[in-house]
Amino acid sequence: MPVVSPSLPGVAAGSPESRPLSELPEWAAFCGAAKASSIDTRKLRLIDAAGIQMDISGQVCSGELAAAARALLDARGFSDMRRRLLDGGIANVTENRAAWHTSLRIPAPIEEIAAERRRLNEFVRLADSERRWRNIVHIGIGGSDWGVRLAVGAFGYAGTWRNVHFVANIDGHAIQGGLAGLDPHDTLIVLASKSFTTAETLQNGRRALEWLQASGVANPYDQVVAITARPEVARAWGIADAHIFKLWDWVGGRFSVWSAVSLTTALAVNVDVVAGMLAGAAAMDAHFQQAPLEENAPIQMALAGIVNRSVLGYGSLNIAPYDFRLFNLVPYIQQLEMESLGKSVNLAGQPVGVPTGPAVWGMPGTDAQHTFFQWLHQGSEGAPVDFIVCQHADHGWPDHHRSLLANCLAQREALLKGKSYDDALAECLAGGMDADEAKWLARHRVHPGGRPSTLIVLPRLSPYTLGALLALYEHKIFVQGVVWGINPFDQWGVEYGKVLAKGITAELAGEAAVDARHDASTAYWVGAFGSNQASSS
Amino acid sequence: MPVVSPSLPGVAAGSPESRPLSELPEWAAFCGAAKASSIDTRKLRLIDAAGIQMDISGQVCSGELAAAARALLDARGFSDMRRRLLDGGIANVTENRAAWHTSLRIPAPIEEIAAERRRLNEFVRLADSERRWRNIVHIGIGGSDWGVRLAVGAFGYAGTWRNVHFVANIDGHAIQGGLAGLDPHDTLIVLASKSFTTAETLQNGRRALEWLQASGVANPYDQVVAITARPEVARAWGIADAHIFKLWDWVGGRFSVWSAVSLTTALAVNVDVVAGMLAGAAAMDAHFQQAPLEENAPIQMALAGIVNRSVLGYGSLNIAPYDFRLFNLVPYIQQLEMESLGKSVNLAGQPVGVPTGPAVWGMPGTDAQHTFFQWLHQGSEGAPVDFIVCQHADHGWPDHHRSLLANCLAQREALLKGKSYDDALAECLAGGMDADEAKWLARHRVHPGGRPSTLIVLPRLSPYTLGALLALYEHKIFVQGVVWGINPFDQWGVEYGKVLAKGITAELAGEAAVDARHDASTAYWVGAFGSNQASSS
Repeated sequence: MPVVSPSLPGVAAGSPESRPLSELPEWAAFCGAAKASSIDTRKLRLIDAAGIQMDISGQVCSGELAAAARALLDARGFSDMRRRLLDGGIANVTENRAAWHTSLRIPAPIEEIAAERRRLNEFVRLADSERRWRNIVHIGIGGSDWGVRLAVGAFGYAGTWRNVHFVANIDGHAIQGGLAGLDPHDTLIVLASKSFTTAETLQNGRRALEWLQASGVANPYDQVVAITARPEVARAWGIADAHIFKLWDWVGGRFSVWSAVSLTTALAVNVDVVAGMLAGAAAMDAHFQQAPLEENAPIQMALAGIVNRSVLGYGSLNIAPYDFRLFNLVPYIQQLEMESLGKSVNLAGQPVGVPTGPAVWGMPGTDAQHTFFQWLHQGSEGAPVDFIVCQHADHGWPDHHRSLLANCLAQREALLKGKSYDDALAECLAGGMDADEAKWLARHRVHPGGRPSTLIVLPRLSPYTLGALLALYEHKIFVQGVVWGINPFDQWGVEYGKVLAKGITAELAGEAAVDARHDASTAYWVGAFGSNQASSS
Repeated sequence: MPVVSPSLPGVAAGSPESRPLSELPEWAAFCGAAKASSIDTRKLRLIDAAGIQMDISGQVCSGELAAAARALLDARGFSDMRRRLLDGGIANVTENRAAWHTSLRIPAPIEEIAAERRRLNEFVRLADSERRWRNIVHIGIGGSDWGVRLAVGAFGYAGTWRNVHFVANIDGHAIQGGLAGLDPHDTLIVLASKSFTTAETLQNGRRALEWLQASGVANPYDQVVAITARPEVARAWGIADAHIFKLWDWVGGRFSVWSAVSLTTALAVNVDVVAGMLAGAAAMDAHFQQAPLEENAPIQMALAGIVNRSVLGYGSLNIAPYDFRLFNLVPYIQQLEMESLGKSVNLAGQPVGVPTGPAVWGMPGTDAQHTFFQWLHQGSEGAPVDFIVCQHADHGWPDHHRSLLANCLAQREALLKGKSYDDALAECLAGGMDADEAKWLARHRVHPGGRPSTLIVLPRLSPYTLGALLALYEHKIFVQGVVWGINPFDQWGVEYGKVLAKGITAELAGEAAVDARHDASTAYWVGAFGSNQASSS
């Protein structure tokens, strides 16, 4: 099936990196080595990366697996692919452009990037010096939302002098809630949309503008800022050039936390947070570029994930940040990873042949322990867990932090070691049960164990370590994309639903005939919902 | 393996409900029928339940499957099990007690329950009439947290006159953030813990009390309320009887939203919200008890879930509430479902033999569309989706609600119908691509389709419909527990980690020797974290 396009840039037809993974002999060798390996509980495997420590002792390992991994990466042309990514080559082949977000964080960026950052910092400095914008309403969705939410939550969790509200959803209750209680005269509206055509963002932005207008502020457009790769569209929308901050076509939405989208972070917390995150991410970029394979954190994390997903068959990956401040890390990584790796077709357009990106989900510990850890321990399948914790806290209660660290280590140990029937039985008998009851109940208390996990330790939660952590996941995902042979930078699966939604919106509004190709259920609900539009919202 | 305890109440050794599911001929028949069935896109399958409409057209169906389901439920003694649940019999066999949360919501509850509810309402009435407690800090975790968060978020999303902060995590940053900026003189601390021994809740409660004391309020304990099944422990903690609200041993933590834990909901929004939720849940209880199998929403939802999980092999279930106000529904259902069904041992203590409860995850749409719908559409496995939407909105922008409804229907249709290679190719060619490039790119735009979903439509988001929705999931989970043969009311997997954490906490504090049985990694981190405790928090 010669489906490789002649225009597929830099990936030659029939080249190893375009072949279905399942057909490569190096993949067969990797699978064989992984299946013959196990988790070695007597061995500490620790990697230092950009100030972060990553402990992969809880993942399967062996010398054979390491050798097979090296051969597999070589077969996939990994070094070339990494160079192409970091040098701004065409890494996003199906959209024929670079994925050069790393260029936003190199210590001395090109002048165009540096100039835009100076403009942004000056905007913040001026606003701060005038104590303007007591309220910020940040309007963006997906990649234009989660990164800022994450940073503002992490460093503004105990409140900031500015109220920051986030509005993403097209649901009118979102903008209603987002504007409620704010003084329009001291509110800045930040519209973040790369294309400046995102339906949710523009529609919510329109509501915010109406709200400013209705309140009688002097110049509503002076209170609106746009962040976009298409300044001309924002200008046509009515926003002045001085209020338009630019990002570039080669910055994917899910990497835009490194761009001017962080204006809201700078206003909510301070510009140093943004600078610190950029520096930490740059340090991780350098590590990813330079560290040898065995000591390369993103690479080793990627390989462990591939073993868990494509060899051992785990369907999902749980993220457990043992830090309350990282309550938005899970949706951030969900977006980053699932939009990147939620594909089953390789660069050449052929089926990958093995399971690709897992479902990513999770919640901060210890909340998670009281929510779904039961399932991780005793459910029929379980999931690998990424534990993330800070060695030092930023509060004055050492006993709380000690408990937090202990809970993190304990859950990880319980998943790894499990509890045998004999131990459970001894426990029941020690509790004074009679023998028959103990034998029965002990079976309910068994933990199978052997469930893989990674532990990531930050010395402290800082902009620098958070930046490094996010870049760690970015590069992990990139490596997995290379091995699976898929393009982690497109998102064709998002487009189709948008097109269908546009059609159904017109049908509901009575502006288009109901499509006869709808399934019975969709046709029914278009009728039911459509007929109610006239009488009520 | 005759491991059924003689004390196993009401489940006789060797009885059909205690046998591993995989051994039952009715299970084999059910699997066969499910595999031979498919999703019929020409058929509308709609169930009315307590004012909610549930559309299961997007799940596999056939007459054979329906007959096999009836036989399977009969073989499991489902009717008896349901009666035992609703009548307050020993439904929680491994803990030898009832799971009688439904008794909290029957229109005329027993006097003990009614009296406690009157006390609670009177407390709220008095506080409201005096305009006391401008701030509420609700301290609870897991089942003592998510239900209240959900209700307060759903009906107080645009702000309430009281500030309500939730503190759950043992991480000191949680209580630090939870108390920040509040006036201690007008703050009520609500401690919710069934056992009143939950480590997180008591430790955070202690910090809150110290904060009150340090601020010089007259009687700190007058500003603390406890909700617990063990009043004597709360009393020993220092709380006055008048400030202790009772729940009962037979109310599981994950069902405690129906109990006095809803005090915070009543204070934050109003008592009618609590009453409405109870009424809606009671209506769903009646439906569950009375509706015939084919028109019984919880039963049909449970059966679809069993087909998806145990026959088709889907590892997870995605929940997509297309309503911004339900942003805490996903963690609520996660807790309810995964703590209930995250087990692989049946009532008799034997392996169930088939995959049980899936990973439950999700996010409100349309946010979810920009976060992980890519994966649902084009990922290698996908997941069944529960779409939840309200026919009518409570804001004044019909176009927003129309878009929301359209997006919900469109995503569901896209998952179901997919997009063929031919359609994708035609699209690419229509866009002006040359033939080779179009052939290549079209493969990246294919959506396999055939992915199952359920649509749940509420007429409007009200306390009544939310209560009915939560009870729908409760009973669905119960039915699945009966079919899989597991006890959905215990949580042995939560206990083990707690015990280990206690030990490691002592090791980190230097109060106990480091356990020589730790794996290498745990031993390393106990050393690294322990040595830092002295110098810094």
